[in-house]
Amino acid sequence: MNPNSIGKDYLDHISIDCVIFGFHNKSLRVLLLKWKTINRWALPGGFIKKNEHADAAAQRVLSERTELSNIFLRQFHTFSDPDRNKADGNLDISLLPVRFSKEAIDWIKGRFVTIGYFALVDFNKVKPVPDLFSEECRWWELEQLPVLLYDHHHIVDAALIALRDALQYQPMGKYVMPKKFTLPELQKLYEVILGKKIDRRNFRKKILGLNIIHPLGETRKGGAHRSPDLYSFN
Amino acid sequence: MNPNSIGKDYLDHISIDCVIFGFHNKSLRVLLLKWKTINRWALPGGFIKKNEHADAAAQRVLSERTELSNIFLRQFHTFSDPDRNKADGNLDISLLPVRFSKEAIDWIKGRFVTIGYFALVDFNKVKPVPDLFSEECRWWELEQLPVLLYDHHHIVDAALIALRDALQYQPMGKYVMPKKFTLPELQKLYEVILGKKIDRRNFRKKILGLNIIHPLGETRKGGAHRSPDLYSFN
Repeated sequence: MNPNSIGKDYLDHISIDCVIFGFHNKSLRVLLLKWKTINRWALPGGFIKKNEHADAAAQRVLSERTELSNIFLRQFHTFSDPDRNKADGNLDISLLPVRFSKEAIDWIKGRFVTIGYFALVDFNKVKPVPDLFSEECRWWELEQLPVLLYDHHHIVDAALIALRDALQYQPMGKYVMPKKFTLPELQKLYEVILGKKIDRRNFRKKILGLNIIHPLGETRKGGAHRSPDLYSFN
Repeated sequence: MNPNSIGKDYLDHISIDCVIFGFHNKSLRVLLLKWKTINRWALPGGFIKKNEHADAAAQRVLSERTELSNIFLRQFHTFSDPDRNKADGNLDISLLPVRFSKEAIDWIKGRFVTIGYFALVDFNKVKPVPDLFSEECRWWELEQLPVLLYDHHHIVDAALIALRDALQYQPMGKYVMPKKFTLPELQKLYEVILGKKIDRRNFRKKILGLNIIHPLGETRKGGAHRSPDLYSFN
């Protein structure tokens, strides 16, 4: 990103924000960047090039900001409150360590409608790396998020609702489960994301009814109890 | 809308498109406007004012274009293909009967990312009225749509998928069903929107499991068969 041609290279008034949920070993986290100088945590985000699809912009932004790539991002909502950047007081963009021209600062300070994307990944498999604008990039426990830039807390809340909806009828688990897993292991993923206990028999009936997983005809050996059946995503 | 200040009054590069599904008596339709002079059917759409929420813009656009108001619109997807307006050849905006300045025409010919909204209404209860730009506004059978402007056919397809998803877990039917209805009547709505037959017992089990309707403890009298139970949305 060239700080001085930003208003020429990108579409005015439209941005991208990515809510990257990470799951590993019973814990659900969100990937955040800490902006230099202004002392604010924010979602990985950016702008759309003049001739770029928003989906491509989201992939590019995510890999530029975090070195994550090839992640299945889903667009979930576009946020258009005209005051969405005022929820955070008078943030002074000019304090950012990268030197912007006056035109670029005016452009950034304008109103932005932001297109939200989310993904679910295994946070143990990715090594987030901060970009030029940020001093830190790391996973935060969903229940213990810091103060976030602008309306980013609202965007995270909406993304969690979208993730929970998707979990009800799409094979979201395949991005974070091992290739072979037991039903209790998959149930744990659902319980953590949905934030509640699920009845074991109801879960079994519902998940098998969705036709997104199949039994492998194998069992896991070695435990103290009866060897549980292994499943895989279709 | 003032044709000459359009580029000053509205956000650049962002538009709104509304897919209004109408249901009545076993038929599913879509509301379309026929643009004057250029001979193209299009979705009701428009732009976002500089200080307006996209949701408010969608309500305003819909009522300006069609005289429909107080409709529960749901945002479902934002369409950002940089070539989305080229799918329709070289449409000449300057042929529109309203006189635009050269600046306004350049503005309209720019790239637009469009935020899609959908609604489900009883088409028998609304009287669509065309606006200044259009010579006709009417319902079209979903299976027999005419050639549409830009990528509007793709937007309708995506809205239908969103409507079908919403139907699986939300009380979409309450906008088109009478206050009291029988389960076979509600099943017909689902069959028409989903485009397939549903097993009667599966439907009964599923819809009652959703907790979106309740039995009224009344039956409908007067038929030749056993009086069916009446239900209402919660």
